[in-house]
Amino acid sequence: MSKKMIPALEWITNYKRADLTGDLSAGFIVAIMLIPQGMAYAMLAGLPPVIGLYASTIPLLIYALLGTSRQLAVGPVAMVSLLVLAGVSTITEPGTDEYISFVLLLMLMIGVIQLLMGLFRLGFLVNFLSHAVISGFTSAAAIIIGLSQLKHILGIKLVADKNVFNIIFESVSRLSEVNPLPVTIGALSILLLIIIKKFVPKIPGPLVVVLLSIMTTSFFQLQGLGVSIVGDVPKGLPSLSLPVLTVDAVIALIPIAIAISLIGFMESIAMAKAIATKEKYKVIPNKELVGLGLANIGGSFFAGYPVTGGFSRSAVNYQSGAKTPLATMITAILIMLTLLFFTEVFYYLPHAVLAAIIMVAVYSLIDIKEAKHLFKIKKADGWTWITTFIATLTIGIEQGIIVGVVFSLVVFIWRSAYPHVAELGFLKEEKVFRNIKRYPNAEVDPEVLIIRVDASLYFANMSFLEEKLSERVATKEQTKWIILDFSGVNAIDAVAIHSLEEIMTDYNKSDIQFLFANVKGPVMDLLRKAGWGDRYHEKIAHLSNQHAMSAINNEKERLACARY
Amino acid sequence: MSKKMIPALEWITNYKRADLTGDLSAGFIVAIMLIPQGMAYAMLAGLPPVIGLYASTIPLLIYALLGTSRQLAVGPVAMVSLLVLAGVSTITEPGTDEYISFVLLLMLMIGVIQLLMGLFRLGFLVNFLSHAVISGFTSAAAIIIGLSQLKHILGIKLVADKNVFNIIFESVSRLSEVNPLPVTIGALSILLLIIIKKFVPKIPGPLVVVLLSIMTTSFFQLQGLGVSIVGDVPKGLPSLSLPVLTVDAVIALIPIAIAISLIGFMESIAMAKAIATKEKYKVIPNKELVGLGLANIGGSFFAGYPVTGGFSRSAVNYQSGAKTPLATMITAILIMLTLLFFTEVFYYLPHAVLAAIIMVAVYSLIDIKEAKHLFKIKKADGWTWITTFIATLTIGIEQGIIVGVVFSLVVFIWRSAYPHVAELGFLKEEKVFRNIKRYPNAEVDPEVLIIRVDASLYFANMSFLEEKLSERVATKEQTKWIILDFSGVNAIDAVAIHSLEEIMTDYNKSDIQFLFANVKGPVMDLLRKAGWGDRYHEKIAHLSNQHAMSAINNEKERLACARY
Repeated sequence: MSKKMIPALEWITNYKRADLTGDLSAGFIVAIMLIPQGMAYAMLAGLPPVIGLYASTIPLLIYALLGTSRQLAVGPVAMVSLLVLAGVSTITEPGTDEYISFVLLLMLMIGVIQLLMGLFRLGFLVNFLSHAVISGFTSAAAIIIGLSQLKHILGIKLVADKNVFNIIFESVSRLSEVNPLPVTIGALSILLLIIIKKFVPKIPGPLVVVLLSIMTTSFFQLQGLGVSIVGDVPKGLPSLSLPVLTVDAVIALIPIAIAISLIGFMESIAMAKAIATKEKYKVIPNKELVGLGLANIGGSFFAGYPVTGGFSRSAVNYQSGAKTPLATMITAILIMLTLLFFTEVFYYLPHAVLAAIIMVAVYSLIDIKEAKHLFKIKKADGWTWITTFIATLTIGIEQGIIVGVVFSLVVFIWRSAYPHVAELGFLKEEKVFRNIKRYPNAEVDPEVLIIRVDASLYFANMSFLEEKLSERVATKEQTKWIILDFSGVNAIDAVAIHSLEEIMTDYNKSDIQFLFANVKGPVMDLLRKAGWGDRYHEKIAHLSNQHAMSAINNEKERLACARY
Repeated sequence: MSKKMIPALEWITNYKRADLTGDLSAGFIVAIMLIPQGMAYAMLAGLPPVIGLYASTIPLLIYALLGTSRQLAVGPVAMVSLLVLAGVSTITEPGTDEYISFVLLLMLMIGVIQLLMGLFRLGFLVNFLSHAVISGFTSAAAIIIGLSQLKHILGIKLVADKNVFNIIFESVSRLSEVNPLPVTIGALSILLLIIIKKFVPKIPGPLVVVLLSIMTTSFFQLQGLGVSIVGDVPKGLPSLSLPVLTVDAVIALIPIAIAISLIGFMESIAMAKAIATKEKYKVIPNKELVGLGLANIGGSFFAGYPVTGGFSRSAVNYQSGAKTPLATMITAILIMLTLLFFTEVFYYLPHAVLAAIIMVAVYSLIDIKEAKHLFKIKKADGWTWITTFIATLTIGIEQGIIVGVVFSLVVFIWRSAYPHVAELGFLKEEKVFRNIKRYPNAEVDPEVLIIRVDASLYFANMSFLEEKLSERVATKEQTKWIILDFSGVNAIDAVAIHSLEEIMTDYNKSDIQFLFANVKGPVMDLLRKAGWGDRYHEKIAHLSNQHAMSAINNEKERLACARY
């Protein structure tokens, strides 16, 4: 086993004693944060709270050995929990044994997908999810997550589950049934969490409200007064359990498994990279996939549910001084000790408090400001955000992200089909060629049209380029030479090369010659492969617009002299 | 009604008598070609042959009035017929009344989709289908189409229908059941069609084999000897019939309707553009969509089936002298006359002959050479071709095109995530900056690193760029300035701008300064919107690498003097 295969060998063999204090305190603080969060997120995923704790043991140990991030805190997170609920609840009822076994199967599938993506180096696939899509999706999902917890705080069992408008409508119309006790507990918890977060961020808010609420509930025996509590939490470590594999279930779960694999990895790698940049080390995306994948595969054999690297806990881990994955190992061990000895403590924990923890945690993910920012910088990105946000909120979690991805692809296709094209003139003083629209004082030779295309050329935008060319030529009747400035052409395809030849032949008939300038190496290679080297050698080899212009000027002189 | 809305007003009001001869003869020749083809393609689509003739009446008249191509021959085509069969046969059995009514509904849906795409100017969406995908798909589909006709020539009813391997396997294993008569008719027809096509292309081959086979069959009464014939073809024009709309059927047909809308339009616009370029007039893609859409909507009320502009008939129409859409109108009128008076003629037409016509027609669509060509020019395009081809052949018609589109998107995402990055040096003689790997004699200042990124920058490739930068800086220890040559950066997004700022701040800590050269107008606008104008004014405004270099040299002098 080399260090390349097991990244942990690297930090274990080089472990410095100085790092131990930071790792210990970070591991301890994250564990304190993770216990209530894990239980809350498991509840959000439609699972018994203890599964959130199980998911915080084996997967953490595996990731600590195989991950390349030193500070990433892996475990249950809100977004993935919601996706689990959205995906599995369409197949079977939450709360049943079948539901739990499907979640385990889903975890195994996610692990296998992530592992394969890592081994085949397909990490780049997350790039299908653009920033605008992720941000719009996260904001909408945060609202859905928050509202889905409303029932625990109102103390009523809502029929509506996923559609936010139905949830709001039903909550308002059944306001008379609301139980004031859980509302009070929930509201006080939210208030306390916000106050602690704002004024004494060093204190772990979730732990405070959990302990306070447990004491209050058990002292006043509030569970008898309509306050729903967590109740018995099974003692002991998770036992080995094999996920049940059936072909039908696997097929039904594939879409959600792919979605969670990508979204989970995206959340994880974003955070891992952010910390690694600050700490000046490298995380390797494809190895992260392997680490996360094996963490999920391992967890699926120990009654867990899908995990990934979370934003907030990783930030806390890092800020609390974590230097190596030992911190994560300490967290896992503390969770195990909790499972072994302290599960009774949570008997009196009200569901309303877990709901309050979730609500406060996800509130910060609603990022309407980002939409405004995107609109300011680039309208299309803003519209992508809005579209994804609205689709997720109205149509559904899984559909929302698909709508977002498709919309951003449509925007991309639209943009590459209608690229920016500029006519250039010469700035004498600066000795550069620039867009004559932006630099009206740029010099233009009436017989030479210089066109810069700001896009890779392919079958789909050639007709647009052709149109633009004929428009410009029509307004510039003396045109005898056209210089195509290829500095923006980063790639070209076979169809575009063929179309270019046709265009050149057509224009030659009207005595207009083509020259190519600033052709890049990779593009030149393709032109040569298509036989342009022999056919047009001198035309495509101009290293700059100046070179092309002087070739034209030489030609002009030659023609002038030929008259005599 | 203006000429803008009804393009026909343009050519009708300006009709020249000189064009009449060409239009008449082209209209006549296309009609002669269309009668056997229409019947054959309808059979391919799992419909009674007469529906192919119905589809060649009303839709042609509508397109002649509303289309912007003057020579495009609209009507039944092989590819769309196959897609109709592939899509509708999964819902209901071909040959039933329900099948016909679903095809009519599908035609209406295709019409509505194309009309809406035209009205909302969404024609650019066909760009999702790259050339490699279309070519690979067409080649595979042609093989499937050809083999699907084998049963008519062998004279046995095959169980296998779509999977080519099953078709071949079943045909071979049941070779003993084959009826030698249809095999002979089919083989002779194919031979005759090839010979006519090759040596006397002026003669319409399909008509010749149709007439010859009708005479032979009726003379020898071959239908009694196991030769399957077309039989009664209903006399008279198609009657008005309303497509039956049910929500379930509409939902089931949506995927295939979208696929046919796009593929049909693609085939049509490619041919229309090719002819328009030669004839120096303009076809307007979004108006073509409106024309085709209304042709399909109209046809769906008159017992037709989905139509589009076909490759081969349009070529024949153009070569036979068609000058205006009047030729298409003449074709439609001739088909109507045939329906009114000559349907008995086709009673004795053997199915094997129609199958032979289809096989010869689609053979030319199998374009393995194109795959080789793509591989030579650009490997990724070649792989896209192969993937689409194999997926279409093995998984299925509809799935094949989806696999192709997804594969080409993955290739694109991969490429934009790992763009080409070059380190530049100065060519003294030519006075240009080029890749030092390609121009080893390019001069390099040990303190200045010039990097050209050949890609638009966005969230997904920034980390790759960052990596490349740190790699280069690591090998060039004296680096004090980094010039980013943005000539290839055609676009940038908000996340990339933000990442760039972070990178700059990071490098500033190690006393490395950034300068930006060749920033294009559209990119500069975005940088300014993000506040870079105020923050980095002098750094981003360098019009060329030379300008950036002289700024650096000035700075170097200033620093040198400051020492004293």
